[in-house]
Amino acid sequence: MKKIDTGRTSRKKKKYESPDSPRSVGWTRPYTVRLADKDNPLLLDCGEKLAPIDVEYEIYGEMNPKKDNVILLLHALSGDAHAAGWDKKAEEMGRNWRTDRPGWWDTMIGPGKAFDTTKYCIICSNVLGGCYGTTGPASINPLTGKPYGLDFPIVTVGDWVRLQERLITHLGIERLYAVVGGSLGGQQALEWSLAYPDRVERAVILASSARLSAQGLAFNVVARNSILNDNNFNNGNYYDGEFPAQGLAIARMLGHITYLSETSMRNKFGRRYRENGSRPGFHLGVDFEVESYLQYQGQSFVARFDANSYLYITRAMDYYDAADRGKGDLDKACSNAKAKFLLVSFSSDWLYTPEQMKELAFALYRNKKHVSYVDIPSTYGHDAFLLEVDQLTPIISKFLKEGDVYGV
Amino acid sequence: MKKIDTGRTSRKKKKYESPDSPRSVGWTRPYTVRLADKDNPLLLDCGEKLAPIDVEYEIYGEMNPKKDNVILLLHALSGDAHAAGWDKKAEEMGRNWRTDRPGWWDTMIGPGKAFDTTKYCIICSNVLGGCYGTTGPASINPLTGKPYGLDFPIVTVGDWVRLQERLITHLGIERLYAVVGGSLGGQQALEWSLAYPDRVERAVILASSARLSAQGLAFNVVARNSILNDNNFNNGNYYDGEFPAQGLAIARMLGHITYLSETSMRNKFGRRYRENGSRPGFHLGVDFEVESYLQYQGQSFVARFDANSYLYITRAMDYYDAADRGKGDLDKACSNAKAKFLLVSFSSDWLYTPEQMKELAFALYRNKKHVSYVDIPSTYGHDAFLLEVDQLTPIISKFLKEGDVYGV
Repeated sequence: MKKIDTGRTSRKKKKYESPDSPRSVGWTRPYTVRLADKDNPLLLDCGEKLAPIDVEYEIYGEMNPKKDNVILLLHALSGDAHAAGWDKKAEEMGRNWRTDRPGWWDTMIGPGKAFDTTKYCIICSNVLGGCYGTTGPASINPLTGKPYGLDFPIVTVGDWVRLQERLITHLGIERLYAVVGGSLGGQQALEWSLAYPDRVERAVILASSARLSAQGLAFNVVARNSILNDNNFNNGNYYDGEFPAQGLAIARMLGHITYLSETSMRNKFGRRYRENGSRPGFHLGVDFEVESYLQYQGQSFVARFDANSYLYITRAMDYYDAADRGKGDLDKACSNAKAKFLLVSFSSDWLYTPEQMKELAFALYRNKKHVSYVDIPSTYGHDAFLLEVDQLTPIISKFLKEGDVYGV
Repeated sequence: MKKIDTGRTSRKKKKYESPDSPRSVGWTRPYTVRLADKDNPLLLDCGEKLAPIDVEYEIYGEMNPKKDNVILLLHALSGDAHAAGWDKKAEEMGRNWRTDRPGWWDTMIGPGKAFDTTKYCIICSNVLGGCYGTTGPASINPLTGKPYGLDFPIVTVGDWVRLQERLITHLGIERLYAVVGGSLGGQQALEWSLAYPDRVERAVILASSARLSAQGLAFNVVARNSILNDNNFNNGNYYDGEFPAQGLAIARMLGHITYLSETSMRNKFGRRYRENGSRPGFHLGVDFEVESYLQYQGQSFVARFDANSYLYITRAMDYYDAADRGKGDLDKACSNAKAKFLLVSFSSDWLYTPEQMKELAFALYRNKKHVSYVDIPSTYGHDAFLLEVDQLTPIISKFLKEGDVYGV
């Protein structure tokens, strides 16, 4: 019987800015704070009350005495609180994937960068339901003494933002200089501007939209089904057994397709074979370069992400609709926003499309809000918000400084 | 412990043309013929020789005495030989999914339709490696007396066309009036025109291209991994056990996303919930209409398709590249074609895009071939080739009659 090789493949190492660089925030460490306990649980959109809740966060740059230079950064689906610099404690915390690379937006955060840590204080926290230090499905359920698994309640973008508000209040910050995020992080930034209009001066929303499209919902349900169908999933109760690795890897592979554009996939891989030059290997295993790349992405994700968190976070992504605040009317939902907005889409992004971002921009315009909207030409697809550093930096720098982007 | 409902949902029944309609080809029956045996095996592109090979096919309309009115129809990934009419023998052959609907292109084939059975004789055969009567992985391997499973050799579009050539020769047909196909069927039509230029008068290629894109390869590997990861897959050796139903269903769900456009998904489902009106159910199971639709598509596919065939046919789809005949140069590959070509793309098709079809059209133009190219405006995505009957009918009718589409 033939065996199918869907085996591990390796990738070239990227070059990163070292912690010694004057443009790096250097060595970082995560903080943890308990923001809900049984006397003060968090009331969730689903109706449940959750406690205890611990939140992991990081801080880059200094808070000024008035605490009015704070930028709250919101991460996307697979992100964490470690947005910049090199995690000093990663290895001892067993987070080995963090020891060989800096935070996920290191190119944008640091002295002289878009989010200039000589001016601003950047805070980033891990979302509720995640697997990077904030309470989630892998945390211990106080009722059973065992991990929650699927007994963890459904969480929403609204819940995340209410929890972040507790963090900001805990840190003594009245008003945020800016809220910033890309993708699902952009939706949190939008939600901040609508839920706490008096506490947000500026909102920077990248590669995002007021809601996920039907096609986006469809990709998410396929990804979740792949996890649910994994033989090791065991209805989410796998923490003392085998991990549903293949199911999560497949979900991540699918996600990756939606993060790249057709053009970027063509440029990066085309139809090249991994071996044998231009000749097929005539088998069902990894044969094309693009297959090898996706396998690698899937497998390396499994080493750093919890399958249950993937279920919960994609569900939060599904459920978010900014128009809910206006009973389905996005214009109405946007009416009480007070922030200055910078909206940025990327021309080849087909997960959160420029059209969707324009829909949000027009809803804000019709409310006579202060909005700058930029569509950045890019072939990188949705991933562009992480990659188009040279195009993003002057736009974000100017917006943060002057509140608009004219003349960039 | 919560249980996730990813359960079966139902769909409204479509209305079909009855077998008594004067525009229907009426009741049909499949034929089977052995086209390779141990004295005359089929030499495959992978280098193996395969025998025996049985082929299932159907015929609609009458062959004229000269046998020069024959149109060979090539089916796509999940199609079969039953392209039109109502299968008389379906129930007794255990093909229950065929009893409640006519053939897959019934809207296009019949008296007075695009493929007018009062003029033309239409032949359609199931591809090698399929699961609808032609030899495939579920067939008995003569060496073991058991189903091939993954010991079935890798097959290609080239292999399919060489086997179809045996069928056409067996039926005494010298030259085909036309070869016709959509999607993967279009690639077979293209391959026919390049492999047997003297035997093809016209080629109608719909929603197809010279090769699958890197993005298309990526979707296929995710789909295959989902099957391979199913707990019942058992390395393809599941014919006497449980079927890898969930894995195949997930693969089909993913396929379906690529067959619809973002617009058609928005129009058809939007972000509507299945229950509770506009309010989320706050669970991980089926909640949105689009989830319910995809689940249904996945589950109904499982009842009619073999998981191993899905692996083999998607692999054939991956490997096809018309440029291989020109050592990577598509212009060179097209140089010896003699057919008149009708190429049709659909504006919202993002699996086989208009741009890809234009690439093929230009390669043929540069070779001074006789080419008509039409891009049909449609919101239906890739599925448009099955659905845009009113737009397709006059174009195909005129092309078949006059060899061009001017003035349609």
